[in-house]
Amino acid sequence: MIKNTTGRKAMANKMIDVAIMGHGVVGSGAAKIMLTHKKKLFSAIGEEIHIKKILDLREFPDSPIADRFTKDFNDILNDVEIRVVAEVMGGLHPAYEFVKSLLLAGKSVVTSNKELVAAKGAELLQIAKANNVNFLFEASVGGGIPIVRPMSQCLVANNVKEITGILNGTTNFVLTKMFKDGMSFDEALKLAQELGFAERNPEADVEGHDACRKICILASLAFGKHIYPDNIHTEGITHITEEDVKYAEEMGCVIKFVGDAKVIEPGKMNIFVAPMILRNDSMLANVNYEFNAIMVRGDCTDDVMFYGKGAGSLPTASAVVADIVDCCKHLKARKFIFWADSNNETVFPYNESKAVFYVRLTEIGDIAAAKAELGEKFGGYEIIGEASDEMGVKLPELSVDEVEEKLSSLTASKPVNKIRISDL
Amino acid sequence: MIKNTTGRKAMANKMIDVAIMGHGVVGSGAAKIMLTHKKKLFSAIGEEIHIKKILDLREFPDSPIADRFTKDFNDILNDVEIRVVAEVMGGLHPAYEFVKSLLLAGKSVVTSNKELVAAKGAELLQIAKANNVNFLFEASVGGGIPIVRPMSQCLVANNVKEITGILNGTTNFVLTKMFKDGMSFDEALKLAQELGFAERNPEADVEGHDACRKICILASLAFGKHIYPDNIHTEGITHITEEDVKYAEEMGCVIKFVGDAKVIEPGKMNIFVAPMILRNDSMLANVNYEFNAIMVRGDCTDDVMFYGKGAGSLPTASAVVADIVDCCKHLKARKFIFWADSNNETVFPYNESKAVFYVRLTEIGDIAAAKAELGEKFGGYEIIGEASDEMGVKLPELSVDEVEEKLSSLTASKPVNKIRISDL
Repeated sequence: MIKNTTGRKAMANKMIDVAIMGHGVVGSGAAKIMLTHKKKLFSAIGEEIHIKKILDLREFPDSPIADRFTKDFNDILNDVEIRVVAEVMGGLHPAYEFVKSLLLAGKSVVTSNKELVAAKGAELLQIAKANNVNFLFEASVGGGIPIVRPMSQCLVANNVKEITGILNGTTNFVLTKMFKDGMSFDEALKLAQELGFAERNPEADVEGHDACRKICILASLAFGKHIYPDNIHTEGITHITEEDVKYAEEMGCVIKFVGDAKVIEPGKMNIFVAPMILRNDSMLANVNYEFNAIMVRGDCTDDVMFYGKGAGSLPTASAVVADIVDCCKHLKARKFIFWADSNNETVFPYNESKAVFYVRLTEIGDIAAAKAELGEKFGGYEIIGEASDEMGVKLPELSVDEVEEKLSSLTASKPVNKIRISDL
Repeated sequence: MIKNTTGRKAMANKMIDVAIMGHGVVGSGAAKIMLTHKKKLFSAIGEEIHIKKILDLREFPDSPIADRFTKDFNDILNDVEIRVVAEVMGGLHPAYEFVKSLLLAGKSVVTSNKELVAAKGAELLQIAKANNVNFLFEASVGGGIPIVRPMSQCLVANNVKEITGILNGTTNFVLTKMFKDGMSFDEALKLAQELGFAERNPEADVEGHDACRKICILASLAFGKHIYPDNIHTEGITHITEEDVKYAEEMGCVIKFVGDAKVIEPGKMNIFVAPMILRNDSMLANVNYEFNAIMVRGDCTDDVMFYGKGAGSLPTASAVVADIVDCCKHLKARKFIFWADSNNETVFPYNESKAVFYVRLTEIGDIAAAKAELGEKFGGYEIIGEASDEMGVKLPELSVDEVEEKLSSLTASKPVNKIRISDL
């Protein structure tokens, strides 16, 4: 008996107690990795990570660590031995209240919850700083792709000029199928749902809310000011048609759904989420199916790109576990991931931002008249392709407001879709 | 006077003294970044980085920090205020002796010197560990591409299964020109030299020594055992011809010059540097010109890729500065980058490794006889293309030894080149 007790105590000295809140796709993956990769994690930290509690309202009687489950958040909050907590429940509430309480109680928190970081990042980072603990969120953008840590550490000697990301696997799968297999948007979405790449209610993906949260997190990180999603122009991909696909192909391009944040004057960024036409030979154009990629343009590095699976249980969970490891290695020291709160004064007004657009014009009766009117309104424009009663054109660079005003004044043709053309 | 002294002292408390050894392409870039990005670096560390000494045998009277130059290494070694030193001289000697002395003296060292890390990494990491200081080398692989830190931190929860990298910009530029513009190897190399992408003596690049050092560093990092370049099969690209390019195109592929390290059984890796045939739709196939990319296959993340400029003054220097920042933030704590020494027992014998090869066969008099002989020796093979007196074929998977033995026994055709076909 005495021997056992001593043995346990000796071991306890070499262990760091952690907790996981949520045992869904990501949470169960994180628990699995911590159990199966014990040796590798030990050699990285020098101490063993011990999952002491898992919070979930459901029952998991068949789990090898079924005895560690609790339904009461206070079992984690009030356990002084638990130093690091992973929040992988998702959603804003009660994740926000839980994370805030944990940070205030002096525990480090890691999260995969992009909604939480995009809405409350500045506040939670400030609380973490004040309590000398860490708040990390590598898994909140790009799933298993290393991006938050590389941006905050490896690219620290760069002023970031632009970030462009394919940040949502569902929509990238849909667009890839539209281009490679000639599917319609609806067909491709249905297939994505059947294969498990899209949810039953795909709104957050196809309308761009998910991508918007992610570009806001990346922009906040790069520019040091919190960017709130509500203030960002966000267009989905539901209006992309097979005709748009054909015109893009005519241009030697593809359409990708990107989040973009670009410094356009000191202290001002143009940020948006929208489908974008990219040249076939650009690296982002070759990111297909459920993969994600993020291009970061630094003033020293030039273009650097990070590519991989942006979702899924083990990829995302491995990023969560990497953050837990980092917290365990920095129990006494804070990591310098930080951004200040802001009232979005850094966001350039979208309607005033300049862009080059492709436009599809239909209901053309008299093609000569339609072209003459276009020339009169827009000056130089390029024809991408034309059929009997429609055409695709590339407009000159103008502000969004100017483009919309001029398009709405056309009488000899009817604009049905416009898509930004990338200069990347 | 008293006021001034106090002011200086107060400031001195907020500064960390560093030194740079070497003021060439990378060193001058690092100094420039530290001077121009002062504010950003300060906000990352919370203290100012102060370049106290620069070691170079040349004179730089026009430098804004001309007063900090020294020709005597001891001025750095014996200065107790200097806590972090960047070694960017290149070459094995005296870089090795200098770095070793600095680590033994309790200073952290960062380096961009792949030759040094590949030859002496295990020893220097061991000395750093024993002296509780850091030895970091982000810039030694992939220039400005974040790879060392992401592999050691972000992918810590993964067992790496394979690393495949386009690790040398010179050779990638040459191969890109051969494919995109139909140039010969000699023409492409000459252009690369004219544009400054290749050195006068391009041997280290085109024979693969540079890429070999880099894949050895990555493999050591991923698998925790030092891999010495001398033991690694290294083939250059000088034997690639325009005919090989055409056969690769027939297969819907490109030829890229890669370093590859793959776990093929527990504790055994197959590692080589060689040109490789890759499908056009693989991500690495789209890495062109002077760009580099590294694909890491983890058991949790699946494929993750890092892309960017693998050389150049500011990209590489920005990685050096990121390491300096990391050292400044960890003056009292060691980073857990470490691998053990080894006698290469982890390297699988190259000749016993299995591969699928493309082979170009020439001097064919009787095509039917040549095909019959191939069928007899190799069983199933695929014809990629054939002309009057030659053909390109894809062989079945066999060990390197078997392939070479069978090819050397051919009498009805003459093998002139063979290139590995990737399964990526």
